[in-house]
Amino acid sequence: MTRTTEGGSVGVTTTRTARLFTAESPLVLASGAELGPVDVAYETYGTLAPDGSNAVYICHALTGDAHAAGWHEGDRRPGWWDNLIGPGKPLDTDRFFVICSNLIGGCRGSTGPSSIDPATGAAYGMGFPLLAMADFVTVHRALLAHLGVKRLLVALGGSLGGMQVLQWSLDHPEDMAHAAIVAASSRLTAQNIAFSAVARRAIMDDPHFLDGHYAQEGTNPDVGLSIARMMAHITYLSEDAFTEKFGRSPQGETTNGGFGIDFAVESYLDHQGQVFLERFDALSYLYLTRVMDYFDPFSRPDALTGLAASPVRYLVLSFDTDWRFSTEHSLRIVRHLESVQQPVTFRELRSPYGHDSFLLDDPAYHATLRAWFDRALEVGV
Amino acid sequence: MTRTTEGGSVGVTTTRTARLFTAESPLVLASGAELGPVDVAYETYGTLAPDGSNAVYICHALTGDAHAAGWHEGDRRPGWWDNLIGPGKPLDTDRFFVICSNLIGGCRGSTGPSSIDPATGAAYGMGFPLLAMADFVTVHRALLAHLGVKRLLVALGGSLGGMQVLQWSLDHPEDMAHAAIVAASSRLTAQNIAFSAVARRAIMDDPHFLDGHYAQEGTNPDVGLSIARMMAHITYLSEDAFTEKFGRSPQGETTNGGFGIDFAVESYLDHQGQVFLERFDALSYLYLTRVMDYFDPFSRPDALTGLAASPVRYLVLSFDTDWRFSTEHSLRIVRHLESVQQPVTFRELRSPYGHDSFLLDDPAYHATLRAWFDRALEVGV
Repeated sequence: MTRTTEGGSVGVTTTRTARLFTAESPLVLASGAELGPVDVAYETYGTLAPDGSNAVYICHALTGDAHAAGWHEGDRRPGWWDNLIGPGKPLDTDRFFVICSNLIGGCRGSTGPSSIDPATGAAYGMGFPLLAMADFVTVHRALLAHLGVKRLLVALGGSLGGMQVLQWSLDHPEDMAHAAIVAASSRLTAQNIAFSAVARRAIMDDPHFLDGHYAQEGTNPDVGLSIARMMAHITYLSEDAFTEKFGRSPQGETTNGGFGIDFAVESYLDHQGQVFLERFDALSYLYLTRVMDYFDPFSRPDALTGLAASPVRYLVLSFDTDWRFSTEHSLRIVRHLESVQQPVTFRELRSPYGHDSFLLDDPAYHATLRAWFDRALEVGV
Repeated sequence: MTRTTEGGSVGVTTTRTARLFTAESPLVLASGAELGPVDVAYETYGTLAPDGSNAVYICHALTGDAHAAGWHEGDRRPGWWDNLIGPGKPLDTDRFFVICSNLIGGCRGSTGPSSIDPATGAAYGMGFPLLAMADFVTVHRALLAHLGVKRLLVALGGSLGGMQVLQWSLDHPEDMAHAAIVAASSRLTAQNIAFSAVARRAIMDDPHFLDGHYAQEGTNPDVGLSIARMMAHITYLSEDAFTEKFGRSPQGETTNGGFGIDFAVESYLDHQGQVFLERFDALSYLYLTRVMDYFDPFSRPDALTGLAASPVRYLVLSFDTDWRFSTEHSLRIVRHLESVQQPVTFRELRSPYGHDSFLLDDPAYHATLRAWFDRALEVGV
């Protein structure tokens, strides 16, 4: 696709880690279970204004991490949302102070099921507590307190990130002035759950999963995790995007009709499955996908009551070819918010790339975000 | 769904086996490779007219078999297309003589990769020759000769079955007067191939696959094969059908948020994956899906030339919610056939059930088939 984003880089960035909860002062989860210590990996870009009025929190999607922008030493690629964040970019770091943290339950520096439980000296494994969307919010809030940020100008996220923003805005609307929810859902469909269920099954039925004790045994459910990732990738792209990118092109000069990698699309999926193993943990995949399955915030009768006292200005965006979380998912969110008179800007953007569009720099998409961020800065916290 | 089909059962049926090729007189494949002996399992329903004018050949889909109608002793379910075939049903066995055979490469009585190679005394495994759609046609024609059927009134198939009918009608239009192609494709998309590629990967990377030697070792790639089936099932139903059938209903009275079978849709997929292991072979899954990936008959410049001398009356049907082989796949077939002035009846049927609709007894669908079959009988061979 075209590289239309203007602006510079935030340069070399460092992921820092904060111990936000300890064994003595643990994180209390929505389930009532307690977890401690809890470390959270995070990055920040730009400078917090003296009056604290320019803070933006980025919530990442299923397999994201704290490294949203800039470059780590030696990396071939910048952070995962680098096209959005930087001097002169839509999230202009000359004006905004941007925070991004790795989710608890994840595997990129924050405490998760493959972290060592100090009480046992071994990885938590399946003994890690079950999580809910509200738990992510609790930890995000603890990080804000740690950073001395009292109120957010904007909370922003795509896919699972948007789901966190929605939960956060419902549970603590006083925490933010603006909330941007992109390519997200308030309630997975049976088909959504089905894909995640098969992915989890592939992981858990891998003989190397060992009931989650794979790390102690020095192994990893590589087959299951790569199958899960390959399948997920099919759902991240539209059928037309697959056709445009790969069509029926052969991968090599000759094909033998056998069972190897004959078609270009097979090579792409194989690559996606393999590189995923280097950066993601099977248990995190289980824990984070299950949070999404159970997410259904509007089923709570009092879900919307907090917004009356502390309204939030929402931006809800969908992409017309996204079949993982179609526009209907976004419209359901819009209808709920409008039922309690929240100001909501909704737009369905045209993009051929399906769900993945939220990570790309489509000009109309970025122009929409840029205008909305600029307006947020004008309106203020 | 409603059970609208009227008519009786063909009663108790028996799958017979014919040795159509021997080691001395082998099947010559499109690749030039030879295979023998080749046994083919088949069933017939009704009676061949003295003038041979009422023969209908059913080509089955990926995981079908020869048992299309009636009951086998002790079975809980009739044949897979029993709603279509029987006295008084659209394929009225009081008037039509219906033939259905199991594909070579399959595992339901016909010679396939898990059959014993008499030359070695062991299963062929990955040494089984690679197949093409034209090879299925060669074997179907041999069965017709064996049965003394000179020309078909109708060749009919859904999904992979429709692809066989298309290939057959292009390569040997003189074999049939009418061809019905339902929910099929002349050319898989990159997304179609992607789903099959991940399924094959799940099978081949299962440690029990053993490069296809699992049978000799007394094991089976159960995990990979069930994952493949679960994933495929997601593509066989529309998203709306999943929502209607399962929604977000919990499977039991209590759910714990853990990683078991919490949602009804998870129970459905688990069941589909498990029962599939009882009736299908992993190597057959590899071989048959790969034939579909490579199928692209209209890419041959002379694909349509035979139809000038021996026109075929076509029926091409699609279902509006089928996202595995959408209406666009059927329209591509129609455009090619119409480019050489073949008589084509095309209809997109409304059905909420996605790709699986071709196996169901939607009233409009069955009425369309019934009228077209009746007309075929009037027109004759």
